[in-house]
Amino acid sequence: MAKTIPENFQDLLSKKALADIATIMPDGTPQVTPVWFDYDGRHIRINSAKGRQKDRNMRARPAVALAIVDPDNPYRYMQLRGEVIEITAAGADAHIDALSNSYLGKDYPNRQPGEVRVTYVIKLSSVSTMG
Amino acid sequence: MAKTIPENFQDLLSKKALADIATIMPDGTPQVTPVWFDYDGRHIRINSAKGRQKDRNMRARPAVALAIVDPDNPYRYMQLRGEVIEITAAGADAHIDALSNSYLGKDYPNRQPGEVRVTYVIKLSSVSTMG
Repeated sequence: MAKTIPENFQDLLSKKALADIATIMPDGTPQVTPVWFDYDGRHIRINSAKGRQKDRNMRARPAVALAIVDPDNPYRYMQLRGEVIEITAAGADAHIDALSNSYLGKDYPNRQPGEVRVTYVIKLSSVSTMG
Repeated sequence: MAKTIPENFQDLLSKKALADIATIMPDGTPQVTPVWFDYDGRHIRINSAKGRQKDRNMRARPAVALAIVDPDNPYRYMQLRGEVIEITAAGADAHIDALSNSYLGKDYPNRQPGEVRVTYVIKLSSVSTMG
């Protein structure tokens, strides 16, 4: 099983595809939310805010899974599984702006008062593709 | 927290939106896959094939979560959590054809030799909407 995103699916990275990320709740049940993401060739990075449910879930239980569907073809997608190996507020403000510029073409417009942005680095353990 | 899909999000049901469904692996980690779905006003139904990973996961651990994103607006979506309350092969062949007709406009074209189709009925415990 591949542990990186194959060349022929890397177009999804520039197509503003969302990732639906699953995390595990305290009772062991799943939670899924759509998120922006980027990829450095080895790791997926996402960004959230301290205290949110998925933040609390990933701090306590680092196993995650993601589905990334081609916005131009719903039958072409990747399924990824992995583990959050780093959780940091350092650089996370700049990171949400970088993601927002990539997805929306402008700095992140939805900051909440007092919000602490957080970056999560995900090490992939399996990548499978369809379509 | 709502336990049904609100009126103002029911348009997603006819828009051929995919659901990304999370199930729980034997080791407690999550798995996410895009699926077709329908909704009877109370329950979400999906369809898979006997023996697949998500089939095995849902038989052993019925808690699931789904994200359903508006194909026309990625910032409008629903997050659902619930439990699989029924798993049946009865009617599941007709069900995959009904789903396929709804999404593709024709009977399901991808049946595999020996495949046993299965319908999963999901009782919702929470529905939240964004956008």
